[in-house]
Amino acid sequence: MDVSIINIGDELLLGQVVNTNAATMGRMLVEAGMEVKRTVVVGDVYDDIWQAVDEAIHSSDAVLVTGGLGPTKDDITKKLLCDYFHSELVESPVALENVRRIFAVRGFELTPVNRAQALVPKCCEVLNNDLGTAPCMLFNSEFQKLNFEKGDTLQNSKSKIQNSLLVSLPGVPFEMEWLMENRVIPRLREHFRTDVIVNKNILVQGIGESFLSDLIEPWELALPENIRLAYLPAAGMLKLRLTCRGEKNSSLLTPHSPLLEGLYALAGQYIVGEDCETLSELVHKTLTERGLTLATAESCTGGSIASALTAQAGSSAYFKGGVVAYSNEVKESALGVKHSTLEAHGAVSEATVREMAEGARQRLGADLAIATSGIAGPGGGTTEKPVGTIWIAVATPSGTEAVLLSFPGRRRQQNVECTVNQGFAMLMKTVRSEGK
Amino acid sequence: MDVSIINIGDELLLGQVVNTNAATMGRMLVEAGMEVKRTVVVGDVYDDIWQAVDEAIHSSDAVLVTGGLGPTKDDITKKLLCDYFHSELVESPVALENVRRIFAVRGFELTPVNRAQALVPKCCEVLNNDLGTAPCMLFNSEFQKLNFEKGDTLQNSKSKIQNSLLVSLPGVPFEMEWLMENRVIPRLREHFRTDVIVNKNILVQGIGESFLSDLIEPWELALPENIRLAYLPAAGMLKLRLTCRGEKNSSLLTPHSPLLEGLYALAGQYIVGEDCETLSELVHKTLTERGLTLATAESCTGGSIASALTAQAGSSAYFKGGVVAYSNEVKESALGVKHSTLEAHGAVSEATVREMAEGARQRLGADLAIATSGIAGPGGGTTEKPVGTIWIAVATPSGTEAVLLSFPGRRRQQNVECTVNQGFAMLMKTVRSEGK
Repeated sequence: MDVSIINIGDELLLGQVVNTNAATMGRMLVEAGMEVKRTVVVGDVYDDIWQAVDEAIHSSDAVLVTGGLGPTKDDITKKLLCDYFHSELVESPVALENVRRIFAVRGFELTPVNRAQALVPKCCEVLNNDLGTAPCMLFNSEFQKLNFEKGDTLQNSKSKIQNSLLVSLPGVPFEMEWLMENRVIPRLREHFRTDVIVNKNILVQGIGESFLSDLIEPWELALPENIRLAYLPAAGMLKLRLTCRGEKNSSLLTPHSPLLEGLYALAGQYIVGEDCETLSELVHKTLTERGLTLATAESCTGGSIASALTAQAGSSAYFKGGVVAYSNEVKESALGVKHSTLEAHGAVSEATVREMAEGARQRLGADLAIATSGIAGPGGGTTEKPVGTIWIAVATPSGTEAVLLSFPGRRRQQNVECTVNQGFAMLMKTVRSEGK
Repeated sequence: MDVSIINIGDELLLGQVVNTNAATMGRMLVEAGMEVKRTVVVGDVYDDIWQAVDEAIHSSDAVLVTGGLGPTKDDITKKLLCDYFHSELVESPVALENVRRIFAVRGFELTPVNRAQALVPKCCEVLNNDLGTAPCMLFNSEFQKLNFEKGDTLQNSKSKIQNSLLVSLPGVPFEMEWLMENRVIPRLREHFRTDVIVNKNILVQGIGESFLSDLIEPWELALPENIRLAYLPAAGMLKLRLTCRGEKNSSLLTPHSPLLEGLYALAGQYIVGEDCETLSELVHKTLTERGLTLATAESCTGGSIASALTAQAGSSAYFKGGVVAYSNEVKESALGVKHSTLEAHGAVSEATVREMAEGARQRLGADLAIATSGIAGPGGGTTEKPVGTIWIAVATPSGTEAVLLSFPGRRRQQNVECTVNQGFAMLMKTVRSEGK
């Protein structure tokens, strides 16, 4: 079954807000076994929204619309859907009760403007929005028929509309996400009887997309028909996602299955972990499970390693802290890097990055430490050490390892992101190889 | 003039990648005086892309297409545009030279697959992509006419196409952004002779959107017709953007103009700075200009302050370094917070955050230091100190100030982002009030 998404809002077109809703909805629908065919973003303009709704409803099984449900006058979705479905606005007791409840929790008085949030087209079904006052509205052919007495475009059309659903959701991300999970997707699955979907993520590092594709080609070509492989590149790493549609073969995606072992046989040396979305999530899970603590000593990554880890709830269980040693003085004073080392080898050198990692491990009292020092650019490069020359070290109780990365021709942000991911991969390999 | 954007890629529909390109392009076009009418996202499917291109080209003055230009077989944009414009693929000497140059820089050998990147439809003009191997291609009616001998849909249509432009760009964000700025927007402005646009950003902190809107209403209502005001909320702050279309009244947006003074008279106490996109950029500019150095001591923000600053090239001029003091031991050992302070007041307290700021300033040898300590959530809250209880301190040579923030009911990421921005605003106010 095909889904079309319509996100309404001037702020999206003007680029004031990044449209994360489309990605969130896409991901949730895919995980529920549905396919998104098209996403359209239009502004708060009646004709533009009408056209997008009309196109979508005639080409998809389900249409999900977000935005334009607020109480202010630039929010016109409700009025438009009312016109489109030849209905009239009525006060929904369910929606009104919800608005009253939310205002009571917030301790605000219910004004007429807010009460108007409970007005909905008569032909829709209200799906209760537990997190906000804007109603979530479902329109389907059953409801529509009740309201189509006059010959109208919908009944006369040769389109799919008689079997299709349209759902209007608020654009506030956390309300939309809650409604998708708890109200919309269950209704879509019930209505369209979709397949079960099983996903499996495999994190890969140290090999480019095209080289990996060549390496695992025989394995990929032998995948069962209902298992699909996607290559999802991120900075300095790749995520492979296997998706199984339907019950059949889904057991092939359980850990250590023959199918997965076949992948390891070809590319195992590049596989860093499974079942995580990101390498920072993998580090988080692994260190938490193994009861190992970590400290960081960051120069060129400037705090990005620490902030990626601490973005995850519960990171205080293993993350002791870190030093962002941007200047040489701080490398000496906070991490104990020797002045003579900096003089002899410079800040971007194997000797320095090793002392940074060892200093962080000892001074911050952690089992493991990771350190970075490099030239992120655009300035600061020399002939011997051009922009993109970056050292990473990982210190453990049994020793310290350092590697030199080289990213010629990349930009500052890429250099930082690649270093963070390669650092996480190196940390995971070290933990595994030491059996920690 | 109206612009339509088409972003191509399965990964966008599946929600594996958030479509930041649409927002970036929207923002850049608005700043250049153009309006985005609609954004469409479609997968790597020939018919879906064709339909989106055909709809857009018949309803907009310019169509910008991103994605589907890679060397692998799922990238079909070039082939499709070649078919759509009844052209043929030829090797472009300009594009080939660019591919050669980039491979030489990276030190890789040029393979046939990579050489194929230089194939483009004969009817297009190549806009050189300095940052990547995928070509940027411009199609306009002049070029099209040369290639339309047979009666075809384009020539026969009653559409705007004879005056319209279509540009195909790579989907890689930094390549797209560079091309938009340096190649595409200049061409669009030249072709459509758009108005001069002057933008003015004003960063505001400490007041909510609706309260600010009430406060400055008389000033806003008196704005000249060709000056528009937008409220752009971000975490814990607001950006006001004034946009002047055309030469007339543009001098009203120069510093200290009567128009701006009128805004300061009403809301000056909330204005943190001007002419920056973000507060981190304002801190960067201000500290660089004034020759002041900074150190950080972060607990709940976990390195986000340091990484926001070091994301900007040149930050080593003022940023000495920082400590991410997640555990109490690190607060003591790396920042010199007294054990007795932590025992008596806890980590999330005014006393601790003051000692953190002072410790960072002294130990890392900076003029100024900023410190954060709080409960980001979702766990760790108590009745006296619920999730969202956060202390910030700023230390200077003349003393230390601390403030308590309280964000009830927010999520971890919001708490961190709001704290970072409020911290930057506090730092700027301190620098200004001390005349540093």
